[in-house]
Amino acid sequence: MLLVGVLLHYLFPLLSLPEKRAGFFDDGGLSLLKSFPLVSLVPVKAIQPSLHDNTADLDRLKSALTESLPEQLRRCSCSIRIPFACMAKIAASFRAAGFAGYAVVQYEYDRLVLVDFVAEQPELLPALALDLGSTHLEATLLDLLTDKALARNAALNRQVSHGADILSRMHFAERKKGGGNEREGEGLAVLQDAVIASINELLDELCRETGVRPEDVQAVSVSGNTTMVHLLLGLSPRHICREPYIPLVNAPDPFLAREIGLKLHKQARVWVLPGRGSYFGGDLISGILATGLDQTEKICMLIDVGTNAEVVMGNNEWLIACAGAAGPALEGGVARMGMRAAAGAVEHVAIDRENWQLSWRSIGGGPPLGLCGSGLIDLVAELYLARIVDLRGKFQAAFPGQSAEHKRFVEERLLELDGEQVFQVVVAGEAGNKEPVVLSQLDLDAMMRSKAAMYAILVTLIGQVGVEFSDLHRISVAGAFGKHINPRQAITLGMLPDLPLSTFEPVGNSSLRGAEMILLDHAAFERSQEIARKITYIELNVNQEFMIRFSGSRFIPHTDPGLFPSVSSFR
Amino acid sequence: MLLVGVLLHYLFPLLSLPEKRAGFFDDGGLSLLKSFPLVSLVPVKAIQPSLHDNTADLDRLKSALTESLPEQLRRCSCSIRIPFACMAKIAASFRAAGFAGYAVVQYEYDRLVLVDFVAEQPELLPALALDLGSTHLEATLLDLLTDKALARNAALNRQVSHGADILSRMHFAERKKGGGNEREGEGLAVLQDAVIASINELLDELCRETGVRPEDVQAVSVSGNTTMVHLLLGLSPRHICREPYIPLVNAPDPFLAREIGLKLHKQARVWVLPGRGSYFGGDLISGILATGLDQTEKICMLIDVGTNAEVVMGNNEWLIACAGAAGPALEGGVARMGMRAAAGAVEHVAIDRENWQLSWRSIGGGPPLGLCGSGLIDLVAELYLARIVDLRGKFQAAFPGQSAEHKRFVEERLLELDGEQVFQVVVAGEAGNKEPVVLSQLDLDAMMRSKAAMYAILVTLIGQVGVEFSDLHRISVAGAFGKHINPRQAITLGMLPDLPLSTFEPVGNSSLRGAEMILLDHAAFERSQEIARKITYIELNVNQEFMIRFSGSRFIPHTDPGLFPSVSSFR
Repeated sequence: MLLVGVLLHYLFPLLSLPEKRAGFFDDGGLSLLKSFPLVSLVPVKAIQPSLHDNTADLDRLKSALTESLPEQLRRCSCSIRIPFACMAKIAASFRAAGFAGYAVVQYEYDRLVLVDFVAEQPELLPALALDLGSTHLEATLLDLLTDKALARNAALNRQVSHGADILSRMHFAERKKGGGNEREGEGLAVLQDAVIASINELLDELCRETGVRPEDVQAVSVSGNTTMVHLLLGLSPRHICREPYIPLVNAPDPFLAREIGLKLHKQARVWVLPGRGSYFGGDLISGILATGLDQTEKICMLIDVGTNAEVVMGNNEWLIACAGAAGPALEGGVARMGMRAAAGAVEHVAIDRENWQLSWRSIGGGPPLGLCGSGLIDLVAELYLARIVDLRGKFQAAFPGQSAEHKRFVEERLLELDGEQVFQVVVAGEAGNKEPVVLSQLDLDAMMRSKAAMYAILVTLIGQVGVEFSDLHRISVAGAFGKHINPRQAITLGMLPDLPLSTFEPVGNSSLRGAEMILLDHAAFERSQEIARKITYIELNVNQEFMIRFSGSRFIPHTDPGLFPSVSSFR
Repeated sequence: MLLVGVLLHYLFPLLSLPEKRAGFFDDGGLSLLKSFPLVSLVPVKAIQPSLHDNTADLDRLKSALTESLPEQLRRCSCSIRIPFACMAKIAASFRAAGFAGYAVVQYEYDRLVLVDFVAEQPELLPALALDLGSTHLEATLLDLLTDKALARNAALNRQVSHGADILSRMHFAERKKGGGNEREGEGLAVLQDAVIASINELLDELCRETGVRPEDVQAVSVSGNTTMVHLLLGLSPRHICREPYIPLVNAPDPFLAREIGLKLHKQARVWVLPGRGSYFGGDLISGILATGLDQTEKICMLIDVGTNAEVVMGNNEWLIACAGAAGPALEGGVARMGMRAAAGAVEHVAIDRENWQLSWRSIGGGPPLGLCGSGLIDLVAELYLARIVDLRGKFQAAFPGQSAEHKRFVEERLLELDGEQVFQVVVAGEAGNKEPVVLSQLDLDAMMRSKAAMYAILVTLIGQVGVEFSDLHRISVAGAFGKHINPRQAITLGMLPDLPLSTFEPVGNSSLRGAEMILLDHAAFERSQEIARKITYIELNVNQEFMIRFSGSRFIPHTDPGLFPSVSSFR
């Protein structure tokens, strides 16, 4: 069954596009319905010790803390713990501060952990929310006192140099040390070190930007797919890609950041968003959290196309999900001119079918270097509408009744390059690296497989619970895919169902958003655990229906055009 | 108020005598009404993973474990945690064992901690119970599978070389590094290192005796006085001996043994019996556990005279306690010929008042070297009954109506030695080191202060709750004091109340027993926390009534002989 994994790996090469760096602070302060953050600052004023009250210092502190707890935290108060490593320092600070000051308290499920005590109220209580992507890390430095984002930034995941995609990382993780040294997990350690170094660097950068000291950062939340979480934790992902596709852990308990080499506050804990399975990770649970899919009355759907294509549907009563293993974006050269949605990527293409003019727009406005996912979808949809791509997804140079203008346009653009038929989007002279930006038939084939898989996944999923697409109140589209894609074009290609455009809602980096949410609100973390327990997961790798539907979807828009009434009217 | 501490320090020099090494296995297997030990072995058989059950390995293990838990453990099952450091190993073992084997589970208040997984049932699940005495450590290596004691042993507390008694250790703990280096807590670190080394050695010895590997020992329970616990944990005892006598911590949360340098299983935790205050430590809470004082309907009392003299009284509804700071035994040379209850110590003395013969018995039967506590109490009581010591506790050579035999006996024994009046118990020729074993007036004065303080404590305590001595159903006497003392003689001196001898019950090393109990039974650990919360502690250091009663008790048997009717009839 590894084969299907590999197959799916090639099905989604086009769709993993990172969010643009711009517009990060759109949301200003995060306005969440919260109860209390995973790390809280609690003002404490204890009764002075005397001969008539000889309670021990730390017991005195625990007891005063219990009384000072906000209502919501109080239910945990029967179980306040002080880690051994903190006892001496906390006791000394408590005494030096005259038995009054501020306790730093971590929430840990059924108990509170008292990790620090300070005399003066600190200005900030920083914590790091991390979206652990296979190619990029994105992080927010939050202040848990005010719920404000202090800074956001992104960094390359250094693991990329050991494998561009998830599958190659999995293989690398099994690499043993060379030269007869058969020590297990050597590759695994290299990958763990790489991602830890990337996170530490990203944190340092965020700290530099904000003037926060890394050792003052009180917690990290991590939202990532199951394999990335395994590599972060130094756990072998060996069984994730082998039937029956079992991860080693879905819901790791919080642990100390320094146990994996993260350089934060000594008592800072790592909170990992739980996953549901090998191909449905914490990044998706984050998405469910962020979109409130688990709290809505009406049936909604969330689509996240990143390294994997993952879809979940449901409401406050049930959640059903499936996912297909996929590869990372276009960067790997799967599509000839494919590239990440970075400066120079053609992100939008339009063909004026009156005057037979092609126009494009690149990210940043500079000379184009290649096609990113949304550009590709735009382009293929436009080519289909212009009858330059047929319903099987093949280039067609001529057809009965073709106009002269059409013929001239096609002749100018549909060329032979290196023995391959390509459609030229940008001529060499206008391109950034003086090579034309083109779409090859191979790119087109990959695109067709991707769109077919996407639609097959959606149909399979709704088929499982016997609902219709029209029953969907909202379809949230996460990540770069949701941000850049034009749903109209995706419908034209038969990639997304033919629903009113208002049904589709881009939700940005919901993986990062979920990581932020759990830091800011312990209830969100508990919700994430509940979501992971609640989801019914459909394994597509062994789903016959999926394979049938996949074949049926390899036409534009579909073998059954009746499913896409709005598309028929366009041509 | 340090003065009173110092005073009390000298009040109890005579009474701290260690239990003899013999008779350790009297009780065979420990027969306790138990629910489950702090570390349990739980057989687990999980459903094999399949495409239809893709639960992650560790979630599968948690879930199978939950179902396998014995009834009593199940209530904690909602909260099974796996420490980060154990995840990879447990997951690997679980898979290698074919998803069936034995989970090693630690109980930790409101959660279970899964620390290991093994394919085959181990023969033993060893754990160490430790009585942390200021001069001696006593320990039992227990098997938590069978509840059997595998071995018991004792060792010198190496801290002795940095201070014979608690008070000198407290001062040593504040010693800074010399030569201008003012690093705080240098003395504290030395003391912590010393006791850790002693424990590691004792453990190694127990392991050698039994063939157990130290790294297989799964837990340590520690029962000790508050200062000893502070020194073990590396916490400053600075405020314990200073008004208002506040310890830094009374009930430390369990922590990893390796955090203080104990060399056991990497995940072994240290469970410290909670204390109630600076002068009422976990050793006494152990005593309450072991005697069931907190569960009896009738009012009972527990007296423990070790380094401190501690008394607690109560039943299943209330507990009241007090304690006086004291010094360690006779070894420090407080009494001229005082010594620990070791081989060569005169432990029993009798004076035949018909034939005026003195007989004695030494521990081990060899030539005597000195007087241990019980020997001293015997001797002084006999001297009082023989009218060689008067009711003020002073030697008297002659009195009106003295018989010729009496006079001859006194002349033979009451001598001048180095300018001091002494009573000779053993002549030089018969003594082990060829020096006579004698009792000096100074020894006698110290003895009088001790017995006066003991009785004053008891009277003060019962006065607090308005009960009479005759209301006491049982008086358990812990430790060496309880084991060796003749209650009849102690009553004669006015040290213990004049009650039927059947009221007094020696209970041996109840500190060690309590440490064993919590390892074997989590409910006992919870009981210990409850006991610590429940006790009302009377601070004698500031108790005027105590000082008045102390003065009234400095006669034999008392200024009010009516309190000791059975004694009057003896003379």
